[in-house]
Amino acid sequence: MAGVISESVIKRLPRYYRFLGELKAEGKERISSKELSKRMGITASQIRQDLNCFGGFGHRGYGYNIEMLQTEIGQILKLDRPKKAILIGLGNLGRAVAMHMNFESKGFHLIGLFDAKESIVGQIVRNQPVRSTDTLDEFCRENLPEVAILCIPKEAAENISAQLIKLGIKAFWNFSHYDIAMHHPDVVVQNIHFSDSLMRLSFKMND
Amino acid sequence: MAGVISESVIKRLPRYYRFLGELKAEGKERISSKELSKRMGITASQIRQDLNCFGGFGHRGYGYNIEMLQTEIGQILKLDRPKKAILIGLGNLGRAVAMHMNFESKGFHLIGLFDAKESIVGQIVRNQPVRSTDTLDEFCRENLPEVAILCIPKEAAENISAQLIKLGIKAFWNFSHYDIAMHHPDVVVQNIHFSDSLMRLSFKMND
Repeated sequence: MAGVISESVIKRLPRYYRFLGELKAEGKERISSKELSKRMGITASQIRQDLNCFGGFGHRGYGYNIEMLQTEIGQILKLDRPKKAILIGLGNLGRAVAMHMNFESKGFHLIGLFDAKESIVGQIVRNQPVRSTDTLDEFCRENLPEVAILCIPKEAAENISAQLIKLGIKAFWNFSHYDIAMHHPDVVVQNIHFSDSLMRLSFKMND
Repeated sequence: MAGVISESVIKRLPRYYRFLGELKAEGKERISSKELSKRMGITASQIRQDLNCFGGFGHRGYGYNIEMLQTEIGQILKLDRPKKAILIGLGNLGRAVAMHMNFESKGFHLIGLFDAKESIVGQIVRNQPVRSTDTLDEFCRENLPEVAILCIPKEAAENISAQLIKLGIKAFWNFSHYDIAMHHPDVVVQNIHFSDSLMRLSFKMND
């Protein structure tokens, strides 16, 4: 297994994992760094350097064993450890996340959906009933989720995140603009900020 | 105006822009680097270093003029140059993006919505009719959008992106897993990859 892996390598690992999954789905068994380089648009030497961090899967003239390499990367990303997750907010965004994400293959198990709106509570999404946020305390005490996915507005996120942390939630996948990490430095947060991304696109555009 | 600004400063600019907008909405006129530091969870010296890149808005003992600083950052991000955008794919995700994003304040003008599904074409979203993707050619030739927002599956993104580039689209806000930048190195791309983000969350979690 790997020693210390640098932050920049770790940032690239999900992309390697995705591409290796596609190659596997195409029935391929091995690939050279040169071929993978072409496919991913990274230099072959960058790939060799990245993948050398964790063991000798590449052999000169043979290439990488796709299955083994993907499994190894999956273990580094802890995708093989199932983590119980709940999702809060079943508006359009929450619904898209709930319906289209393959949580299981990413190491998550979606065990509960919650919304505050009466008109949404009781609907069935991804074969699960949407529960009322009034029942969060009870549900968390019984089912012990570790992760919460927040698809709610900033105003709601402040109170809900504090409540969830008290209930044992240790990690957030945060689509809201509320800065959880700053207010709760002891929890793990991964943000998706649509508007920051859009502003970066604006910046990159030529005049 | 600014000279050359480093990549890492640019990555932080959207966040500064957001926080300054909040302060403005609260009616504040100026803020010290120390106060802003507390609020954003960055060190005051980092803030001074970042903001010194573009002019002398900070004055010892006075702080930053919020309005001027936000305007300046907005100009660097080119938010003041309206760019015509179209959105493809009005599933749950596309609908969430169309309905909840404040495009105008980010420098974009959403002028058209498109979907391939007959059941979705003709619906009204954000006061606009969803058009058929069959009419893309005609629409683009008449209205000259520069940006396309792709909320479609990977399989559909390959053909649509090639078609759009031929029609003059120069930039993509890409939610699909199709790697546009690799296949079309001449266009500007900003990706939002849900599954990569989720895998990073998995990695960050403690065992």
